Amino acid sequence: MHHIKHISIIGLGLLGGSMALALRKITGAQIYGMDQNAHHLEKALSLGLIDEPIKLEELHQTDLVVVAIPVNKIAEVTAQILDQIQPNALVFDTGSIKSSICEALKSHPKRNQFIACHPIAGTEFSGPEAAFDTLFEGKKNIICDADLSRPDLLEKALLLFEELHMKTDFMNSIEHDKHIAYVSHLSHISSFMLGKTVMEIEKDEESIFNMAGSGFESTVRLAKSSPTTWTPIFIENKASILKSLEEYMKNLNEFAELIEKDNFDALYKIMSDTNHIREVLDRH
Amino acid sequence: MHHIKHISIIGLGLLGGSMALALRKITGAQIYGMDQNAHHLEKALSLGLIDEPIKLEELHQTDLVVVAIPVNKIAEVTAQILDQIQPNALVFDTGSIKSSICEALKSHPKRNQFIACHPIAGTEFSGPEAAFDTLFEGKKNIICDADLSRPDLLEKALLLFEELHMKTDFMNSIEHDKHIAYVSHLSHISSFMLGKTVMEIEKDEESIFNMAGSGFESTVRLAKSSPTTWTPIFIENKASILKSLEEYMKNLNEFAELIEKDNFDALYKIMSDTNHIREVLDRH
Repeated sequence: MHHIKHISIIGLGLLGGSMALALRKITGAQIYGMDQNAHHLEKALSLGLIDEPIKLEELHQTDLVVVAIPVNKIAEVTAQILDQIQPNALVFDTGSIKSSICEALKSHPKRNQFIACHPIAGTEFSGPEAAFDTLFEGKKNIICDADLSRPDLLEKALLLFEELHMKTDFMNSIEHDKHIAYVSHLSHISSFMLGKTVMEIEKDEESIFNMAGSGFESTVRLAKSSPTTWTPIFIENKASILKSLEEYMKNLNEFAELIEKDNFDALYKIMSDTNHIREVLDRH
Repeated sequence: MHHIKHISIIGLGLLGGSMALALRKITGAQIYGMDQNAHHLEKALSLGLIDEPIKLEELHQTDLVVVAIPVNKIAEVTAQILDQIQPNALVFDTGSIKSSICEALKSHPKRNQFIACHPIAGTEFSGPEAAFDTLFEGKKNIICDADLSRPDLLEKALLLFEELHMKTDFMNSIEHDKHIAYVSHLSHISSFMLGKTVMEIEKDEESIFNMAGSGFESTVRLAKSSPTTWTPIFIENKASILKSLEEYMKNLNEFAELIEKDNFDALYKIMSDTNHIREVLDRH
Protein backbone atom coordinates (compact mmCIF):
# COMPACT_ATOMS: atom_id res chain seq x y z
CA MET A 1 0.00 0.00 0.00
CA HIS A 2 1.23 3.45 -0.79
CA HIS A 3 -0.51 5.38 2.01
CA ILE A 4 -1.03 8.40 -0.19
CA LYS A 5 -3.92 10.43 1.16
CA HIS A 6 -3.08 13.95 0.06
CA ILE A 7 -1.92 14.74 -3.47
CA SER A 8 -1.07 18.18 -4.85
CA ILE A 9 -0.96 18.87 -8.56
CA ILE A 10 0.94 21.95 -9.69
CA GLY A 11 -0.26 22.97 -13.16
CA LEU A 12 -3.73 21.82 -14.19
CA GLY A 13 -3.38 21.46 -17.95
CA LEU A 14 -3.64 18.29 -20.04
CA LEU A 15 -0.92 16.44 -18.12
CA GLY A 16 -1.58 17.74 -14.61
CA GLY A 17 -5.34 17.36 -15.01
CA SER A 18 -5.00 13.83 -16.33
CA MET A 19 -2.63 12.94 -13.49
CA ALA A 20 -5.22 14.28 -11.04
CA LEU A 21 -7.92 12.03 -12.47
CA ALA A 22 -5.71 8.96 -12.81
CA LEU A 23 -4.12 9.28 -9.36
CA ARG A 24 -7.48 9.81 -7.68
CA LYS A 25 -8.70 6.58 -9.26
CA ILE A 26 -5.79 4.46 -8.01
CA THR A 27 -5.19 6.07 -4.60
CA GLY A 28 -8.56 7.44 -3.53
CA ALA A 29 -6.62 10.43 -2.15
CA GLN A 30 -7.87 13.99 -1.77
CA ILE A 31 -6.59 16.00 -4.72
CA TYR A 32 -5.40 19.58 -4.31
CA GLY A 33 -4.36 21.82 -7.16
CA MET A 34 -2.59 25.02 -8.10
CA ASP A 35 -2.39 26.91 -11.38
CA GLN A 36 -1.04 30.36 -12.24
CA ASN A 37 -3.94 30.76 -14.61
CA ALA A 38 -7.08 31.52 -12.55
CA HIS A 39 -9.36 30.24 -15.32
CA HIS A 40 -7.58 26.91 -15.38
CA LEU A 41 -7.88 26.59 -11.61
CA GLU A 42 -11.60 27.37 -11.70
CA LYS A 43 -12.14 24.99 -14.58
CA ALA A 44 -10.22 22.21 -12.82
CA LEU A 45 -12.47 22.68 -9.78
CA SER A 46 -15.69 22.78 -11.75
CA LEU A 47 -14.69 19.72 -13.79
CA GLY A 48 -13.86 17.86 -10.58
CA LEU A 49 -10.22 17.30 -11.53
CA ILE A 50 -9.26 18.57 -8.07
CA ASP A 51 -11.12 18.83 -4.79
CA GLU A 52 -9.61 22.06 -3.51
CA PRO A 53 -7.04 24.73 -4.37
CA ILE A 54 -3.79 24.70 -2.44
CA LYS A 55 -0.93 27.16 -1.95
CA LEU A 56 2.83 26.56 -1.92
CA GLU A 57 2.93 27.34 1.83
CA GLU A 58 0.42 24.56 2.50
CA LEU A 59 2.42 21.80 0.84
CA HIS A 60 3.82 20.49 4.14
CA GLN A 61 0.58 18.47 4.44
CA THR A 62 0.95 16.63 1.17
CA ASP A 63 2.23 13.11 0.46
CA LEU A 64 2.80 13.53 -3.26
CA VAL A 65 3.37 16.56 -5.47
CA VAL A 66 3.15 16.39 -9.27
CA VAL A 67 4.77 19.28 -11.13
CA ALA A 68 3.14 19.62 -14.55
CA ILE A 69 4.05 23.12 -15.68
CA PRO A 70 6.02 24.54 -18.64
CA VAL A 71 9.59 23.18 -18.61
CA ASN A 72 11.27 26.56 -18.08
CA LYS A 73 9.49 26.91 -14.70
CA ILE A 74 9.92 23.38 -13.38
CA ALA A 75 13.31 23.76 -11.68
CA GLU A 76 12.43 26.98 -9.87
CA VAL A 77 8.99 25.84 -8.72
CA THR A 78 10.24 22.39 -7.72
CA ALA A 79 12.93 23.98 -5.55
CA GLN A 80 10.22 25.98 -3.76
CA ILE A 81 8.12 22.85 -3.36
CA LEU A 82 11.03 20.88 -1.93
CA ASP A 83 11.57 23.69 0.58
CA GLN A 84 8.03 23.14 1.91
CA ILE A 85 7.45 19.41 1.97
CA GLN A 86 7.66 16.97 4.88
CA PRO A 87 10.49 14.38 4.96
CA ASN A 88 8.53 11.51 3.41
CA ALA A 89 6.77 13.39 0.66
CA LEU A 90 7.50 12.51 -2.94
CA VAL A 91 7.73 15.03 -5.80
CA PHE A 92 7.86 14.21 -9.49
CA ASP A 93 7.55 16.31 -12.63
CA THR A 94 6.25 15.59 -16.14
CA GLY A 95 8.55 17.79 -18.23
CA SER A 96 9.69 16.86 -21.72
CA ILE A 97 13.28 17.92 -20.97
CA LYS A 98 15.28 16.72 -18.02
CA SER A 99 18.95 17.77 -17.93
CA SER A 100 18.59 21.48 -17.12
CA ILE A 101 16.07 20.60 -14.40
CA CYS A 102 18.35 17.97 -12.85
CA GLU A 103 21.29 20.34 -13.11
CA ALA A 104 19.44 23.20 -11.40
CA LEU A 105 18.23 20.99 -8.56
CA LYS A 106 21.39 18.98 -7.99
CA SER A 107 22.48 20.74 -4.81
CA HIS A 108 19.04 21.20 -3.27
CA PRO A 109 19.16 19.61 0.21
CA LYS A 110 16.00 17.65 -0.57
CA ARG A 111 16.99 16.63 -4.11
CA ASN A 112 16.51 12.99 -3.15
CA GLN A 113 12.78 13.51 -2.60
CA PHE A 114 12.43 14.47 -6.27
CA ILE A 115 12.06 12.06 -9.19
CA ALA A 116 12.75 13.51 -12.64
CA CYS A 117 10.08 12.00 -14.89
CA HIS A 118 9.03 12.26 -18.50
CA PRO A 119 5.77 10.46 -19.12
CA ILE A 120 5.66 10.28 -22.93
CA ALA A 121 1.98 11.01 -23.22
CA GLY A 122 -0.04 13.83 -24.65
CA THR A 123 -2.54 14.80 -27.29
CA GLU A 124 -2.81 17.82 -29.57
CA PHE A 125 -5.25 19.34 -27.05
CA SER A 126 -4.40 21.36 -23.97
CA GLY A 127 -5.83 22.85 -20.80
CA PRO A 128 -7.94 21.25 -18.02
CA GLU A 129 -10.79 20.47 -20.45
CA ALA A 130 -8.43 18.19 -22.38
CA ALA A 131 -7.64 16.02 -19.33
CA PHE A 132 -8.80 12.41 -19.19
CA ASP A 133 -8.07 9.61 -16.75
CA THR A 134 -6.56 7.12 -19.22
CA LEU A 135 -4.00 9.45 -20.85
CA PHE A 136 -1.10 7.56 -19.28
CA GLU A 137 -2.29 4.00 -19.80
CA GLY A 138 0.20 1.93 -21.78
CA LYS A 139 2.51 4.92 -22.23
CA LYS A 140 6.24 5.07 -21.73
CA ASN A 141 7.70 6.86 -18.74
CA ILE A 142 11.35 7.83 -18.54
CA ILE A 143 12.87 8.38 -15.11
CA CYS A 144 16.17 10.25 -15.30
CA ASP A 145 19.12 10.16 -12.93
CA ALA A 146 17.21 7.80 -10.64
CA ASP A 147 20.30 7.27 -8.47
CA LEU A 148 19.78 10.78 -7.10
CA SER A 149 16.35 9.86 -5.70
CA ARG A 150 15.78 8.17 -2.34
CA PRO A 151 15.28 4.42 -2.92
CA ASP A 152 12.13 4.15 -0.79
CA LEU A 153 10.52 7.09 -2.60
CA LEU A 154 11.60 5.75 -5.97
CA GLU A 155 9.98 2.43 -5.10
CA LYS A 156 6.78 4.23 -4.12
CA ALA A 157 6.80 6.10 -7.43
CA LEU A 158 7.42 2.93 -9.43
CA LEU A 159 4.45 1.31 -7.74
CA LEU A 160 2.28 4.28 -8.71
CA PHE A 161 3.47 4.24 -12.34
CA GLU A 162 2.76 0.54 -12.48
CA GLU A 163 -0.75 1.11 -11.19
CA LEU A 164 -1.13 3.79 -13.87
CA HIS A 165 -0.16 1.05 -16.37
CA MET A 166 2.88 2.94 -17.55
CA LYS A 167 6.07 1.34 -18.85
CA THR A 168 8.98 2.87 -16.98
CA ASP A 169 12.55 3.09 -18.31
CA PHE A 170 15.63 4.65 -16.74
CA MET A 171 18.01 7.03 -18.44
CA ASN A 172 20.68 9.62 -17.89
CA SER A 173 19.11 13.10 -18.15
CA ILE A 174 21.63 14.35 -20.72
CA GLU A 175 21.11 11.31 -22.94
CA HIS A 176 17.36 11.72 -22.55
CA ASP A 177 17.42 15.28 -23.85
CA LYS A 178 19.67 14.41 -26.76
CA HIS A 179 17.43 11.60 -27.97
CA ILE A 180 14.05 13.12 -27.20
CA ALA A 181 15.03 15.99 -29.53
CA TYR A 182 14.81 13.50 -32.39
CA VAL A 183 11.83 11.36 -31.48
CA SER A 184 9.62 14.09 -30.09
CA HIS A 185 10.79 17.68 -30.42
CA LEU A 186 11.79 17.42 -34.10
CA SER A 187 8.41 15.83 -34.93
CA HIS A 188 6.66 18.81 -33.42
CA ILE A 189 8.76 21.32 -35.35
CA SER A 190 8.37 19.46 -38.65
CA SER A 191 4.62 19.40 -38.10
CA PHE A 192 4.33 23.05 -37.03
CA MET A 193 6.34 24.16 -40.06
CA LEU A 194 4.26 21.97 -42.38
CA GLY A 195 1.11 23.63 -41.06
CA LYS A 196 2.67 27.07 -41.43
CA THR A 197 3.88 26.42 -44.99
CA VAL A 198 0.52 25.13 -46.17
CA MET A 199 -1.45 27.90 -44.49
CA GLU A 200 0.81 30.55 -46.04
CA ILE A 201 0.42 29.31 -49.57
CA GLU A 202 -3.27 28.52 -49.21
CA LYS A 203 -4.28 31.55 -47.20
CA ASP A 204 -6.50 33.08 -49.85
CA GLU A 205 -7.94 29.82 -50.99
CA GLU A 206 -9.30 28.05 -48.01
CA SER A 207 -11.39 25.79 -50.18
CA ILE A 208 -8.14 24.12 -51.15
CA PHE A 209 -8.18 22.46 -47.76
CA ASN A 210 -10.96 20.40 -49.28
CA MET A 211 -8.09 18.49 -50.79
CA ALA A 212 -6.54 17.65 -47.46
CA GLY A 213 -6.74 13.91 -46.84
CA SER A 214 -5.96 11.88 -43.77
CA GLY A 215 -2.24 11.89 -44.65
CA PHE A 216 -2.03 15.65 -44.25
CA GLU A 217 -4.17 15.55 -41.13
CA SER A 218 -2.00 13.05 -39.32
CA THR A 219 1.26 14.73 -40.32
CA VAL A 220 0.03 18.15 -39.22
CA ARG A 221 -1.69 16.97 -36.02
CA LEU A 222 1.10 18.14 -33.73
CA ALA A 223 0.81 21.67 -35.18
CA LYS A 224 -2.27 21.99 -32.97
CA SER A 225 -0.10 21.63 -29.84
CA SER A 226 0.13 24.29 -27.17
CA PRO A 227 2.72 27.09 -27.71
CA THR A 228 2.79 27.57 -23.93
CA THR A 229 4.12 24.04 -23.54
CA TRP A 230 6.37 23.91 -26.58
CA THR A 231 8.09 27.29 -26.75
CA PRO A 232 10.09 26.67 -23.55
CA ILE A 233 10.89 23.09 -24.59
CA PHE A 234 12.45 24.25 -27.85
CA ILE A 235 14.51 26.90 -26.09
CA GLU A 236 15.59 24.68 -23.18
CA ASN A 237 16.69 21.84 -25.44
CA LYS A 238 18.23 24.19 -27.99
CA ALA A 239 21.52 22.44 -28.73
CA SER A 240 20.06 19.01 -29.47
CA ILE A 241 17.09 20.41 -31.35
CA LEU A 242 19.25 22.61 -33.59
CA LYS A 243 21.42 19.61 -34.38
CA SER A 244 18.40 17.48 -35.27
CA LEU A 245 16.96 20.29 -37.38
CA GLU A 246 20.22 20.68 -39.24
CA GLU A 247 20.24 16.99 -40.13
CA TYR A 248 16.58 17.10 -41.07
CA MET A 249 17.16 20.05 -43.41
CA LYS A 250 20.20 18.35 -44.91
CA ASN A 251 18.05 15.32 -45.73
CA LEU A 252 15.28 17.51 -47.18
CA ASN A 253 17.83 19.32 -49.32
CA GLU A 254 19.34 16.12 -50.65
CA PHE A 255 15.91 14.73 -51.40
CA ALA A 256 14.97 17.92 -53.28
CA GLU A 257 18.16 17.64 -55.34
CA LEU A 258 17.32 14.06 -56.29
CA ILE A 259 13.83 15.14 -57.39
CA GLU A 260 15.40 18.00 -59.35
CA LYS A 261 17.62 15.49 -61.17
CA ASP A 262 14.81 12.93 -61.76
CA ASN A 263 16.91 10.38 -59.89
CA PHE A 264 14.22 7.72 -59.63
CA ASP A 265 16.48 4.98 -58.26
CA ALA A 266 17.99 7.05 -55.46
CA LEU A 267 14.60 8.43 -54.37
CA TYR A 268 13.14 4.94 -54.43
CA LYS A 269 15.99 3.56 -52.35
CA ILE A 270 15.76 6.30 -49.71
CA MET A 271 12.04 5.73 -49.27
CA SER A 272 12.40 1.98 -49.31
CA ASP A 273 15.12 2.15 -46.63
CA THR A 274 12.99 4.53 -44.59
CA ASN A 275 10.04 2.12 -44.75
CA HIS A 276 12.09 0.14 -42.20
CA ILE A 277 10.68 2.55 -39.60
CA ARG A 278 7.61 0.30 -39.63
CA GLU A 279 9.48 -2.67 -38.17
CA VAL A 280 11.43 -0.49 -35.77
CA LEU A 281 8.23 1.00 -34.34
CA ASP A 282 6.43 -2.33 -34.28
CA ARG A 283 9.19 -3.83 -32.14
CA HIS A 284 8.66 -1.22 -29.43
CA MET B 1 -29.43 2.33 -62.67
CA HIS B 2 -25.90 2.25 -63.97
CA HIS B 3 -26.04 -1.02 -65.95
CA ILE B 4 -22.46 -1.84 -65.09
CA LYS B 5 -21.97 -5.57 -65.40
CA HIS B 6 -18.31 -5.88 -66.32
CA ILE B 7 -15.60 -3.92 -64.51
CA SER B 8 -11.86 -4.08 -65.18
CA ILE B 9 -9.34 -2.90 -62.65
CA ILE B 10 -5.85 -2.12 -63.92
CA GLY B 11 -3.40 -2.24 -61.01
CA LEU B 12 -4.39 -4.32 -57.98
CA GLY B 13 -2.70 -2.51 -55.13
CA LEU B 14 -4.31 -0.68 -52.21
CA LEU B 15 -6.40 1.64 -54.39
CA GLY B 16 -7.25 -0.74 -57.23
CA GLY B 17 -8.00 -3.59 -54.86
CA SER B 18 -10.19 -1.40 -52.67
CA MET B 19 -12.03 -0.09 -55.76
CA ALA B 20 -12.61 -3.72 -56.82
CA LEU B 21 -14.20 -4.54 -53.46
CA ALA B 22 -16.22 -1.34 -53.20
CA LEU B 23 -17.49 -1.40 -56.80
CA ARG B 24 -18.49 -5.04 -56.55
CA LYS B 25 -20.57 -4.19 -53.50
CA ILE B 26 -22.51 -1.36 -55.17
CA THR B 27 -22.83 -2.76 -58.70
CA GLY B 28 -22.82 -6.53 -58.29
CA ALA B 29 -20.69 -6.61 -61.46
CA GLN B 30 -18.12 -9.24 -62.44
CA ILE B 31 -14.70 -7.88 -61.58
CA TYR B 32 -11.71 -8.47 -63.85
CA GLY B 33 -8.18 -7.45 -63.05
CA MET B 34 -4.72 -6.91 -64.45
CA ASP B 35 -1.38 -6.29 -62.75
CA GLN B 36 2.18 -6.22 -64.08
CA ASN B 37 3.25 -7.92 -60.89
CA ALA B 38 2.29 -11.62 -61.14
CA HIS B 39 2.28 -12.01 -57.35
CA HIS B 40 -0.20 -9.16 -56.97
CA LEU B 41 -2.47 -10.67 -59.60
CA GLU B 42 -2.39 -14.06 -57.90
CA LYS B 43 -2.98 -12.50 -54.50
CA ALA B 44 -5.91 -10.44 -55.81
CA LEU B 45 -7.48 -13.62 -57.16
CA SER B 46 -6.91 -15.64 -54.01
CA LEU B 47 -8.23 -12.82 -51.81
CA GLY B 48 -11.31 -12.57 -54.02
CA LEU B 49 -10.68 -8.94 -54.96
CA ILE B 50 -11.25 -9.91 -58.59
CA ASP B 51 -13.06 -12.79 -60.25
CA GLU B 52 -10.77 -13.29 -63.23
CA PRO B 53 -7.65 -11.89 -64.87
CA ILE B 54 -8.12 -9.86 -68.06
CA LYS B 55 -5.82 -8.64 -70.84
CA LEU B 56 -5.71 -5.27 -72.60
CA GLU B 57 -6.99 -6.89 -75.81
CA GLU B 58 -10.09 -8.12 -74.00
CA LEU B 59 -11.21 -4.71 -72.71
CA HIS B 60 -13.79 -4.23 -75.48
CA GLN B 61 -16.17 -6.26 -73.28
CA THR B 62 -15.94 -3.99 -70.27
CA ASP B 63 -18.32 -1.23 -69.07
CA LEU B 64 -15.91 0.44 -66.66
CA VAL B 65 -12.13 0.51 -66.39
CA VAL B 66 -10.35 1.81 -63.29
CA VAL B 67 -6.67 2.69 -63.80
CA ALA B 68 -4.89 2.44 -60.44
CA ILE B 69 -1.20 2.21 -61.35
CA PRO B 70 1.85 4.40 -60.62
CA VAL B 71 1.30 7.92 -62.00
CA ASN B 72 4.14 7.77 -64.53
CA LYS B 73 2.38 4.89 -66.33
CA ILE B 74 -1.20 6.18 -66.25
CA ALA B 75 -1.19 8.24 -69.47
CA GLU B 76 0.41 5.55 -71.60
CA VAL B 77 -1.73 2.70 -70.28
CA THR B 78 -4.92 4.76 -70.40
CA ALA B 79 -4.26 5.58 -74.07
CA GLN B 80 -3.97 1.84 -74.78
CA ILE B 81 -7.16 1.19 -72.83
CA LEU B 82 -9.08 3.90 -74.71
CA ASP B 83 -7.94 2.29 -77.98
CA GLN B 84 -9.68 -0.95 -76.93
CA ILE B 85 -12.95 0.03 -75.29
CA GLN B 86 -16.46 0.12 -76.74
CA PRO B 87 -18.17 3.50 -77.30
CA ASN B 88 -20.11 3.59 -74.01
CA ALA B 89 -17.40 2.37 -71.69
CA LEU B 90 -16.14 4.67 -68.96
CA VAL B 91 -12.50 4.91 -67.83
CA PHE B 92 -11.25 6.70 -64.75
CA ASP B 93 -7.91 6.76 -62.97
CA THR B 94 -6.91 7.26 -59.33
CA GLY B 95 -3.59 9.09 -59.75
CA SER B 96 -2.35 11.71 -57.31
CA ILE B 97 -1.22 13.99 -60.12
CA LYS B 98 -3.43 15.07 -62.98
CA SER B 99 -1.97 17.68 -65.33
CA SER B 100 0.63 15.60 -67.17
CA ILE B 101 -1.95 12.84 -67.63
CA CYS B 102 -4.56 15.22 -69.01
CA GLU B 103 -1.95 16.84 -71.24
CA ALA B 104 -0.76 13.50 -72.65
CA LEU B 105 -4.29 12.32 -73.39
CA LYS B 106 -5.74 15.57 -74.71
CA SER B 107 -5.73 14.60 -78.39
CA HIS B 108 -6.72 10.98 -77.96
CA PRO B 109 -9.84 10.41 -80.10
CA LYS B 110 -11.62 8.83 -77.11
CA ARG B 111 -10.45 11.39 -74.52
CA ASN B 112 -14.09 12.11 -73.65
CA GLN B 113 -14.59 8.56 -72.34
CA PHE B 114 -11.93 9.24 -69.72
CA ILE B 115 -12.49 10.98 -66.37
CA ALA B 116 -9.37 12.25 -64.62
CA CYS B 117 -9.90 11.45 -60.93
CA HIS B 118 -7.99 11.79 -57.72
CA PRO B 119 -9.72 10.01 -54.87
CA ILE B 120 -7.92 11.40 -51.81
CA ALA B 121 -7.79 8.13 -49.94
CA GLY B 122 -5.02 5.84 -48.84
CA THR B 123 -3.27 4.33 -45.88
CA GLU B 124 0.40 3.73 -45.13
CA PHE B 125 -0.07 0.14 -46.35
CA SER B 126 0.18 -1.08 -49.93
CA GLY B 127 -0.47 -4.05 -52.19
CA PRO B 128 -3.60 -6.21 -52.64
CA GLU B 129 -3.47 -7.38 -49.01
CA ALA B 130 -3.98 -3.79 -47.88
CA ALA B 131 -7.25 -3.37 -49.82
CA PHE B 132 -10.57 -2.96 -47.99
CA ASP B 133 -14.03 -2.09 -49.20
CA THR B 134 -14.58 1.07 -47.15
CA LEU B 135 -11.34 2.88 -48.08
CA PHE B 136 -13.24 5.49 -50.11
CA GLU B 137 -16.15 6.12 -47.74
CA GLY B 138 -16.44 9.77 -46.75
CA LYS B 139 -13.30 10.65 -48.72
CA LYS B 140 -12.80 13.55 -51.11
CA ASN B 141 -12.60 12.94 -54.82
CA ILE B 142 -11.27 15.54 -57.23
CA ILE B 143 -12.34 15.33 -60.87
CA CYS B 144 -10.11 17.40 -63.13
CA ASP B 145 -10.92 19.03 -66.45
CA ALA B 146 -14.42 17.54 -66.33
CA ASP B 147 -15.46 19.55 -69.40
CA LEU B 148 -13.33 17.19 -71.51
CA SER B 149 -15.41 14.16 -70.45
CA ARG B 150 -18.69 13.12 -72.12
CA PRO B 151 -21.59 14.43 -70.01
CA ASP B 152 -23.47 11.11 -69.90
CA LEU B 153 -20.33 9.25 -68.78
CA LEU B 154 -19.52 11.95 -66.24
CA GLU B 155 -23.01 11.59 -64.82
CA LYS B 156 -22.57 7.83 -64.60
CA ALA B 157 -19.28 8.31 -62.76
CA LEU B 158 -20.78 10.85 -60.36
CA LEU B 159 -23.52 8.38 -59.51
CA LEU B 160 -20.89 5.73 -58.75
CA PHE B 161 -18.84 8.08 -56.56
CA GLU B 162 -21.98 9.03 -54.69
CA GLU B 163 -22.79 5.38 -54.08
CA LEU B 164 -19.20 4.98 -52.84
CA HIS B 165 -20.04 7.83 -50.39
CA MET B 166 -17.30 10.05 -51.77
CA LYS B 167 -17.44 13.85 -51.85
CA THR B 168 -16.63 14.97 -55.37
CA ASP B 169 -15.14 18.36 -56.28
CA PHE B 170 -14.13 19.74 -59.67
CA MET B 171 -10.84 21.40 -60.46
CA ASN B 172 -8.52 22.39 -63.22
CA SER B 173 -5.73 19.78 -63.52
CA ILE B 174 -2.92 22.34 -63.33
CA GLU B 175 -4.38 23.95 -60.20
CA HIS B 176 -4.90 20.50 -58.72
CA ASP B 177 -1.23 19.60 -59.07
CA LYS B 178 -0.07 22.90 -57.67
CA HIS B 179 -2.17 22.60 -54.53
CA ILE B 180 -1.87 18.88 -53.93
CA ALA B 181 1.91 19.40 -53.71
CA TYR B 182 1.26 21.27 -50.46
CA VAL B 183 -1.53 19.30 -48.84
CA SER B 184 -0.33 15.83 -49.78
CA HIS B 185 3.06 15.49 -51.45
CA LEU B 186 4.92 17.80 -49.04
CA SER B 187 3.43 15.92 -46.05
CA HIS B 188 4.85 12.70 -47.42
CA ILE B 189 8.31 14.16 -47.94
CA SER B 190 8.40 15.79 -44.51
CA SER B 191 7.41 12.48 -42.96
CA PHE B 192 9.87 10.37 -45.00
CA MET B 193 12.72 12.73 -44.10
CA LEU B 194 11.73 12.72 -40.43
CA GLY B 195 11.88 8.93 -40.44
CA LYS B 196 15.23 9.00 -42.23
CA THR B 197 16.74 11.59 -39.87
CA VAL B 198 15.68 9.74 -36.75
CA MET B 199 16.80 6.34 -38.03
CA GLU B 200 20.21 7.75 -38.99
CA ILE B 201 20.93 9.23 -35.60
CA GLU B 202 19.44 6.35 -33.67
CA LYS B 203 20.80 3.54 -35.81
CA ASP B 204 23.07 2.04 -33.20
CA GLU B 205 20.68 2.57 -30.38
CA GLU B 206 17.42 1.03 -31.32
CA SER B 207 16.29 0.99 -27.74
CA ILE B 208 15.94 4.74 -28.05
CA PHE B 209 12.77 4.11 -30.02
CA ASN B 210 11.37 3.18 -26.65
CA MET B 211 11.04 6.92 -26.27
CA ALA B 212 8.87 7.31 -29.33
CA GLY B 213 5.39 8.38 -28.33
CA SER B 214 2.22 8.72 -30.34
CA GLY B 215 3.34 12.16 -31.58
CA PHE B 216 6.31 10.69 -33.38
CA GLU B 217 4.25 7.78 -34.66
CA SER B 218 1.58 9.93 -36.26
CA THR B 219 4.07 12.35 -37.80
CA VAL B 220 6.16 9.55 -39.25
CA ARG B 221 3.22 7.39 -40.39
CA LEU B 222 3.50 8.41 -44.04
CA ALA B 223 7.15 7.30 -44.08
CA LYS B 224 5.73 3.78 -44.33
CA SER B 225 4.20 4.59 -47.73
CA SER B 226 5.08 2.72 -50.90
CA PRO B 227 8.14 3.96 -52.85
CA THR B 228 6.59 2.44 -56.00
CA THR B 229 3.66 4.82 -55.66
CA TRP B 230 5.50 7.88 -54.45
CA THR B 231 8.74 8.03 -56.47
CA PRO B 232 6.89 8.76 -59.75
CA ILE B 233 4.57 11.25 -58.02
CA PHE B 234 7.51 13.31 -56.74
CA ILE B 235 9.16 13.32 -60.17
CA GLU B 236 5.99 14.04 -62.15
CA ASN B 237 4.98 16.94 -59.91
CA LYS B 238 8.52 18.21 -59.61
CA ALA B 239 8.00 21.94 -60.10
CA SER B 240 5.27 22.38 -57.49
CA ILE B 241 6.91 20.02 -55.02
CA LEU B 242 10.28 21.78 -55.23
CA LYS B 243 8.55 25.09 -54.63
CA SER B 244 6.71 23.75 -51.59
CA LEU B 245 9.92 22.20 -50.25
CA GLU B 246 11.77 25.46 -50.67
CA GLU B 247 9.13 27.28 -48.61
CA TYR B 248 9.09 24.52 -46.03
CA MET B 249 12.88 24.68 -45.61
CA LYS B 250 12.75 28.47 -45.42
CA ASN B 251 10.27 28.18 -42.55
CA LEU B 252 12.39 25.54 -40.81
CA ASN B 253 15.43 27.73 -41.16
CA GLU B 254 13.71 30.78 -39.73
CA PHE B 255 12.34 28.73 -36.85
CA ALA B 256 15.83 27.37 -36.11
CA GLU B 257 17.20 30.92 -36.06
CA LEU B 258 14.55 31.99 -33.56
CA ILE B 259 15.42 29.04 -31.31
CA GLU B 260 19.10 29.96 -31.65
CA LYS B 261 18.30 33.50 -30.49
CA ASP B 262 16.00 32.39 -27.64
CA ASN B 263 13.25 34.48 -29.22
CA PHE B 264 10.42 33.19 -27.04
CA ASP B 265 7.81 35.67 -28.26
CA ALA B 266 8.35 35.07 -31.97
CA LEU B 267 8.37 31.27 -31.55
CA TYR B 268 5.22 31.48 -29.45
CA LYS B 269 3.47 33.64 -32.04
CA ILE B 270 4.36 31.38 -34.96
CA MET B 271 3.02 28.32 -33.15
CA SER B 272 -0.04 30.13 -31.92
CA ASP B 273 -0.83 31.34 -35.47
CA THR B 274 -0.24 27.85 -36.81
CA ASN B 275 -2.68 26.41 -34.27
CA HIS B 276 -5.31 27.98 -36.54
CA ILE B 277 -4.88 24.86 -38.72
CA ARG B 278 -7.28 23.20 -36.27
CA GLU B 279 -10.21 25.43 -37.26
CA VAL B 280 -9.29 25.30 -40.93
CA LEU B 281 -9.32 21.49 -40.93
CA ASP B 282 -12.46 21.31 -38.80
CA ARG B 283 -14.36 23.43 -41.32
CA HIS B 284 -13.69 20.98 -44.13
